[in-house]
Amino acid sequence: MKILVQKFGGTSVATPESMKRVREKVLSGLAQGCKVVAVLSARAGETNKLLALAEEWSASPDLAETDALVSTGEQVSVSLFAMMLKDAGIRARSLLAWQIPIVTDDDFGNARIRSIDSAILKDCLAEYDVLVVAGFQGRTADGRITTLGRGGSDTSAVALAAVLNSVECEIYTDVDGVYTTDPNICSTARKMDHIAYEEMLEMASMGAKVLHIRSVEFAKKYKVPVRVRSTFSNDPGTLVTQEDSRMEAVLVSGIAYDKDQARVTLRDLPDIPGTAAAVFGPLSEKGILVDMIVQNTSLDGRTDITFTIPRKDLRQTLEIMEDVAPRTGASEVIHDVSVAKVSAIGVGMRNHSGVAARAFSALTQEGINILMISTSEIKITILIQEKYVELAVRILHDAFGLDWDID
Amino acid sequence: MKILVQKFGGTSVATPESMKRVREKVLSGLAQGCKVVAVLSARAGETNKLLALAEEWSASPDLAETDALVSTGEQVSVSLFAMMLKDAGIRARSLLAWQIPIVTDDDFGNARIRSIDSAILKDCLAEYDVLVVAGFQGRTADGRITTLGRGGSDTSAVALAAVLNSVECEIYTDVDGVYTTDPNICSTARKMDHIAYEEMLEMASMGAKVLHIRSVEFAKKYKVPVRVRSTFSNDPGTLVTQEDSRMEAVLVSGIAYDKDQARVTLRDLPDIPGTAAAVFGPLSEKGILVDMIVQNTSLDGRTDITFTIPRKDLRQTLEIMEDVAPRTGASEVIHDVSVAKVSAIGVGMRNHSGVAARAFSALTQEGINILMISTSEIKITILIQEKYVELAVRILHDAFGLDWDID
Repeated sequence: MKILVQKFGGTSVATPESMKRVREKVLSGLAQGCKVVAVLSARAGETNKLLALAEEWSASPDLAETDALVSTGEQVSVSLFAMMLKDAGIRARSLLAWQIPIVTDDDFGNARIRSIDSAILKDCLAEYDVLVVAGFQGRTADGRITTLGRGGSDTSAVALAAVLNSVECEIYTDVDGVYTTDPNICSTARKMDHIAYEEMLEMASMGAKVLHIRSVEFAKKYKVPVRVRSTFSNDPGTLVTQEDSRMEAVLVSGIAYDKDQARVTLRDLPDIPGTAAAVFGPLSEKGILVDMIVQNTSLDGRTDITFTIPRKDLRQTLEIMEDVAPRTGASEVIHDVSVAKVSAIGVGMRNHSGVAARAFSALTQEGINILMISTSEIKITILIQEKYVELAVRILHDAFGLDWDID
Repeated sequence: MKILVQKFGGTSVATPESMKRVREKVLSGLAQGCKVVAVLSARAGETNKLLALAEEWSASPDLAETDALVSTGEQVSVSLFAMMLKDAGIRARSLLAWQIPIVTDDDFGNARIRSIDSAILKDCLAEYDVLVVAGFQGRTADGRITTLGRGGSDTSAVALAAVLNSVECEIYTDVDGVYTTDPNICSTARKMDHIAYEEMLEMASMGAKVLHIRSVEFAKKYKVPVRVRSTFSNDPGTLVTQEDSRMEAVLVSGIAYDKDQARVTLRDLPDIPGTAAAVFGPLSEKGILVDMIVQNTSLDGRTDITFTIPRKDLRQTLEIMEDVAPRTGASEVIHDVSVAKVSAIGVGMRNHSGVAARAFSALTQEGINILMISTSEIKITILIQEKYVELAVRILHDAFGLDWDID
């Protein structure tokens, strides 16, 4: 039995009209000779409405009760869609997470999937042609409802695809795939036919909101081929999969950027053991995510430490630094919010040198000053002044030949 | 451990303000040294909204999916109320029917409770002081969501009270108890302190919408004392319970009426075996509920048959009679929609004669013509012209001394 998992987000299931488009996608899955498992989110806006209700009724909404409340959003979607499928003569039924069950830990509001029992799913697939499964939700081992956190429906879909050995996991969204960079700022951006899990993770963490990052980790772990495609077209979309020789032949697959950055520098600290811990320990305690870190080469036993953080955390970071600076002997704390990151991402970097040099030289030639650099195995990230970000994206996109169709 | 089951309807749980009144009732249960099981309906209007959604999305909404959809109404109420209780420092949690489980048959939309497992309930009662249970819903043996039909939350509450051996089952509503008759048409109507299950069943079937009839049957079967009382007052309400000697000392406990009646007569039929079957068989096949039936004494081998039906079924009944009349040899079919029933109800009738005579004479003295009569062990029903119904209720209420406080 061939099984195809398809996931549809909130805008795809918002109205009877959009649901009819979803039904077409399900029918095309059936036409390919597959049984279809359709994973649905809540209708657009519903989850926020339910959360607002909780805030209205409770001074501090209990997390477990909030999950029981919010999970009704998907319950409404799946029962409505199952009705529509039955109207069209399709053998279909809805399934909630507890009915399968999809078992999670008890981290209410942000639960992680522990196991999925495939026995009931397989019984249902023998009896029905389409199973309409509520995304985003799970249940604990002792039977309480949980939710998987924002974007969790992607994770539900990938996990079901893994358990059912689905031919692919199709993630339907309102764009027709993953692009080499943001088409809004680079007119030569191309939709990719393939992208490796690792590349997708780096793209996702840079704010390309096509796929929920946790779902990509899950897909990578269980080797689930994920296809990102549009509810509004028949384009085959982008296949997110294991890296192969074709991908490795390409140096850089995509250019990402992130404007939500602030830079903080502690000046003229004594370069002694424990200084970095004294600076970053208090930030980590407050849950502030430090991204890039640079420490200058020590000059007569003193140094500077510079790091970047999300812009919303700047005020709190500066408060913490007011306390940290005197304790570490820093002479001064300076900051800058007019900075941004651009990244070149590609599994091909693993086997090639000179990628960083090519990026630096392309940016420098156009007069863009490089403020900070950090590199990983498959990514080079460069901090620049925010006003140059669109230009830098176009320069790098061009420098690595991403406007050429090489597939 | 003393356990008190309390049920709150849709208007009681509609807003955060009304929920606070519900919380006061729960607190008073706790103050009596009880653990409280609060059974909640959906917020007023929610169930109808969800049903309208199903109609909007589907040409003929699947019943099982409709139940999965509609059951979210109670899920929202219980999670919100559990949050509010936790805000007040009360150890509370919500429970959905599948979590208990409350197992029903698979008559979706109108399911009947088959069993309730008390093990999880008792574990939860050991850990929590208040369990907030979703009324109106159940699950089948194979794990699909069902609903119990309109008013089903009353049945949920009574069934839970039976299983948990609750001291009482309190049904909170917007009136402060069961009245001897409709106070809107009889100013001397009195709230009863006690009423027998059998009497309550007769009152309920006559349209007194205080309690769902199936819940009263359930309470009678399992001898659960049910107290009907108001969310908006501290009145002890009316206790619905087994009949006792005090009740039997009273001839008549209440006067009910029903204006939704139509009368149909088949004239001048041959009085031969099989005639009644030929008349009522086709009505029963169409699900039309025939209530009172009178057949005249036969005169020279011919007779009349008169019966009453709900007014909404009149058109269909007349269509059926057009077919029945020639086959049975009736000379004519006549009907009348300006009729109504009044009933005197009381378990005391079992041990007393002369009740019917007293009713007839009281009505006749005031010039009210009696069209039909039917009697059962604890009820006398009289069909009269509709225009006299309010007057007849007042006459009977007075004739049986119901305005005297005898408790």
